[in-house]
Amino acid sequence: MTHDVMSGGQPIQQPDDTRALLETIYQQARAIEGGEVASYIPALAEVAPEQCALTLATLDGQSVSVGDAAQRFSIQSISKIFGLMLAMERVGESLWERVQMEPSGQPFNSIVQLEWEKGIPRNPMINAGAILVADVLVSRYSASKNAVLSLVRQLCGADDVFADGRVHQSEMAHGHRNAALAHLMKSFGNIEADVDEVLDHYFWQCALTMSTQQLARSFAFLANRGVCPFSQKRIVARRDAQRINAILSTSGMYDQSGEFAFTVGVPAKSGVGGGIVAVVPDYGVIAAWSPKLNHYGNSQRGLYMIREVATRLGLSVY
Amino acid sequence: MTHDVMSGGQPIQQPDDTRALLETIYQQARAIEGGEVASYIPALAEVAPEQCALTLATLDGQSVSVGDAAQRFSIQSISKIFGLMLAMERVGESLWERVQMEPSGQPFNSIVQLEWEKGIPRNPMINAGAILVADVLVSRYSASKNAVLSLVRQLCGADDVFADGRVHQSEMAHGHRNAALAHLMKSFGNIEADVDEVLDHYFWQCALTMSTQQLARSFAFLANRGVCPFSQKRIVARRDAQRINAILSTSGMYDQSGEFAFTVGVPAKSGVGGGIVAVVPDYGVIAAWSPKLNHYGNSQRGLYMIREVATRLGLSVY
Amino acid sequence: MTHDVMSGGQPIQQPDDTRALLETIYQQARAIEGGEVASYIPALAEVAPEQCALTLATLDGQSVSVGDAAQRFSIQSISKIFGLMLAMERVGESLWERVQMEPSGQPFNSIVQLEWEKGIPRNPMINAGAILVADVLVSRYSASKNAVLSLVRQLCGADDVFADGRVHQSEMAHGHRNAALAHLMKSFGNIEADVDEVLDHYFWQCALTMSTQQLARSFAFLANRGVCPFSQKRIVARRDAQRINAILSTSGMYDQSGEFAFTVGVPAKSGVGGGIVAVVPDYGVIAAWSPKLNHYGNSQRGLYMIREVATRLGLSVY
Amino acid sequence: MTHDVMSGGQPIQQPDDTRALLETIYQQARAIEGGEVASYIPALAEVAPEQCALTLATLDGQSVSVGDAAQRFSIQSISKIFGLMLAMERVGESLWERVQMEPSGQPFNSIVQLEWEKGIPRNPMINAGAILVADVLVSRYSASKNAVLSLVRQLCGADDVFADGRVHQSEMAHGHRNAALAHLMKSFGNIEADVDEVLDHYFWQCALTMSTQQLARSFAFLANRGVCPFSQKRIVARRDAQRINAILSTSGMYDQSGEFAFTVGVPAKSGVGGGIVAVVPDYGVIAAWSPKLNHYGNSQRGLYMIREVATRLGLSVY
Repeated sequence: MTHDVMSGGQPIQQPDDTRALLETIYQQARAIEGGEVASYIPALAEVAPEQCALTLATLDGQSVSVGDAAQRFSIQSISKIFGLMLAMERVGESLWERVQMEPSGQPFNSIVQLEWEKGIPRNPMINAGAILVADVLVSRYSASKNAVLSLVRQLCGADDVFADGRVHQSEMAHGHRNAALAHLMKSFGNIEADVDEVLDHYFWQCALTMSTQQLARSFAFLANRGVCPFSQKRIVARRDAQRINAILSTSGMYDQSGEFAFTVGVPAKSGVGGGIVAVVPDYGVIAAWSPKLNHYGNSQRGLYMIREVATRLGLSVY
Repeated sequence: MTHDVMSGGQPIQQPDDTRALLETIYQQARAIEGGEVASYIPALAEVAPEQCALTLATLDGQSVSVGDAAQRFSIQSISKIFGLMLAMERVGESLWERVQMEPSGQPFNSIVQLEWEKGIPRNPMINAGAILVADVLVSRYSASKNAVLSLVRQLCGADDVFADGRVHQSEMAHGHRNAALAHLMKSFGNIEADVDEVLDHYFWQCALTMSTQQLARSFAFLANRGVCPFSQKRIVARRDAQRINAILSTSGMYDQSGEFAFTVGVPAKSGVGGGIVAVVPDYGVIAAWSPKLNHYGNSQRGLYMIREVATRLGLSVY
Repeated sequence: MTHDVMSGGQPIQQPDDTRALLETIYQQARAIEGGEVASYIPALAEVAPEQCALTLATLDGQSVSVGDAAQRFSIQSISKIFGLMLAMERVGESLWERVQMEPSGQPFNSIVQLEWEKGIPRNPMINAGAILVADVLVSRYSASKNAVLSLVRQLCGADDVFADGRVHQSEMAHGHRNAALAHLMKSFGNIEADVDEVLDHYFWQCALTMSTQQLARSFAFLANRGVCPFSQKRIVARRDAQRINAILSTSGMYDQSGEFAFTVGVPAKSGVGGGIVAVVPDYGVIAAWSPKLNHYGNSQRGLYMIREVATRLGLSVY
Repeated sequence: MTHDVMSGGQPIQQPDDTRALLETIYQQARAIEGGEVASYIPALAEVAPEQCALTLATLDGQSVSVGDAAQRFSIQSISKIFGLMLAMERVGESLWERVQMEPSGQPFNSIVQLEWEKGIPRNPMINAGAILVADVLVSRYSASKNAVLSLVRQLCGADDVFADGRVHQSEMAHGHRNAALAHLMKSFGNIEADVDEVLDHYFWQCALTMSTQQLARSFAFLANRGVCPFSQKRIVARRDAQRINAILSTSGMYDQSGEFAFTVGVPAKSGVGGGIVAVVPDYGVIAAWSPKLNHYGNSQRGLYMIREVATRLGLSVY
């Protein structure tokens, strides 16, 4: 394999090479110390901290995994992409009158910025923006949770994706900052439905559990101009796939998004459950998971694995 | 590999088609009303407002232009890329201890964010970051202006690139907000040289005048993994070309960067002189110019032309 | 009457003179145009806007009124003083670990400042501070509303003081900004009780209705070093009376507190129902009411009446 | 009227008692450990840290001192009152269009608030406000420093008050945050004169050196409705004396102003040189000095001495 060949567009890896590469990176990641499991709710704090998984799914339909790649975990903010897709489908361009598409330059849960922007969240990847999206779903779908479940199950090709009830309830009980964001938006007239109902959907969605194998498969359409490479079904319009990738590029990795673009250079989304999904247009999806987080809330080992795969395979879009 | 393959497999445009496409887009742009010429200094306010130019330079060495593409204008913030390149070369990774690489989520001249971040600018494309970069140049080069001139002249292949002395002096006299940013960084210990000397370099650099033809040629190396496609000389390491493109993607278009990524999807930098340069990795550079600005400070017609070229040619990196 | 004599400590007004002075000021106030009745809830917006009342109660037990001084109105933020008194009594100095005593320099409902200060309100007169005080009452009194009612009825000498149920319910339904403040404090661990219960007490307390005659009598103890001049009962310690007056001086008039100190110079508290109560240490209390508010949320005519009485009688404490 | 009557009716202190009281308080203050001498410029950092002084000047012309009360020190921000007096005299009410009179709720050198308020400082006691006042002096007086010197020498009755040249120069060299404030105001059009000239006046004024004896005498007119009790000359109008006292009450003690009102209850101004001057209307002035500061920038021992004198003599205006 060489970087140059790869970036010329030809496949550079045979499956065996890919597996060996992923295995090497996975073993290196497992040696990384430090980081903290998310502890703001007990249900998340109890996860076995050393678990680690890496999956690479390419557009030719191959999927290679190492580690705990079949183990399901709380996908948390990664679920924001599912919500966004459904809201874009339902309300179209008018969505962008209620939420911007600009990077925030602020922590993911900043209430200061929301106040300045008069209740209009900076983008749908920060919490306020995702809560607004949840309001769209609750207001415009007769059964918003079912709509999400249908989408997710279709994308990952599994009928048994569920939300973790204990995580869901625990978030409800401890989610006072998110409640503050929702009430502030409501006070600006930017939430239509009942605040408690919106928060219920939002926390439920965050509590979905999936494995890296499922995540890699679910987001492959974003690398394939909107078409699922496994089912060949069009999931979203090509333009919308590019738009979602653009938002992930500027805003997907919390307040480390710029550094991630700088050092890795692909659209990605992370969650405090320790998962990260990276989309490589015209190539495939890398999904990584390990529960211990850096101080930005991104998985420490996950970041390492994504960065190494992207760098060694020359996957930067820039 | 060709861009055609990348964007879906079909050949899109022959050279003649390209000229016709640019001409069409240029004529449409000229019909756009509204916007305001930058008026914060008299020297900029006096430019003929209806001027308009568009250049597309591709990696095969072709360059196609329409409109006032040989007319030089004040490149303003586009010059920040030149400064950044020289600072990266001179101080390496240590640069990133003094300036971050995160999108700002704030106006380009925000002093609030600089205060919160204790004098560490969010990125080198906002004014504070570019002033920090100017401090590096003034402190580490024996003749910082000459260093910039040499680089620019080499990149655009012209020996007669100069700063406009009247713009330079006018900025010095009216640049109190930038002076505030510089003094605030100095108070945090993040400016080494004399503040007046740093500002002199910064304003001088912003006053450089170039045409869209020169800009397109100058930035072609960023689309070509660091190698100038005209001279075949390596300008920066491949990794640094990707890094600069990443910063442009998240932070190049002021507080419209997210929307630009969303709707256009390529790294770009704009200046209040009305110029915009967009880098399409593995394809080429689009440079546009027209003086009237929207309220973000981006050229109204310039934005239109860049977006149309990118969209019609399918150039989004996402 | 002369200013000098007054400020030398002697009574300068005979009762008849006082009545004539108040009548003159009242008539001038009624001629003032402009201002807007609080309209954020229907129940407040429906009040007859031209009503106007002025009462001066002095420490010798006299009380002189003009206008609609027996008409009860929604005292709103004036109630924050009653809540504060009960919280100070119940938890003593430890209260000041949970709320500061500094002027805010921000709108009364600023969520930005509350975020910066990590959920510790700047003072008990802004909404966040008063909600925190409500949390103390709800947590530490078996029947917090009864505790407030008992205090208020004792102070004003009337058994029929009530909260307006319609205003109370209307505030509950529209109080999303206050809910955001409460949830944000809860997320910082600075609210003990259930958020909904705290908000219920807070909104109920704001919905108390009293007349200027009742308000003037109720706050006379603050002008009399803690002793009610009518009943001769000590209400609070002398030091606490001074402390409450100090807080009113720096923070009682919303974001117009500094100007009020500058132009009037006495401790005072205002409410969006249009009431203002001013405490003149060692002299008495001025209570004014008229529903139309200036853009700070202070009664326009009320401000005029208080300022004129204080200025003409030379009552500034400075 | 006498102060004794005001504070409850009983005579409190004979002169001998006063000296004994001050001596007791002074000795207690000297036992207080902790705090830090201002170290942002070398010239201030070198002062002998254990020095301590206390002066009480009453309106009957008495002045009692203990400790290093004849020792001159850098009065720093206390000088803001002198500047304000001259600006009020020269431009009258129009001053308040360029600076507000509201407490800031922010650190004394906040640039964030100045940005929000579009270059209009919150009050003349924070740095931005005092720099604005310096602009008025520089613009409207032919020799602004002489104007200040004349005023100060008249007030304290000494011809040999000077600025410390070394402190002045040192502030100039290190005052980048103040320079940032000045340039930001200039960028908003709220500074008329040359920024360097304004800063030169401002830093010079801060470098004035006076003793507690001189300070107590200088500010006695503020306690006496504008008339100097020593010379019987009217210094400012009665209304202006009250207004200055009002500003000191809400904004004189940096971000500890509210707590100071709460616990002490008199108008006061402090400086980072360790001096504090407290004005007791109709009674006199307390001046204290000791160089070690608490984290708000107020003298630790100075605060103790002022509070004890005010509390034991019952001097709160509230």
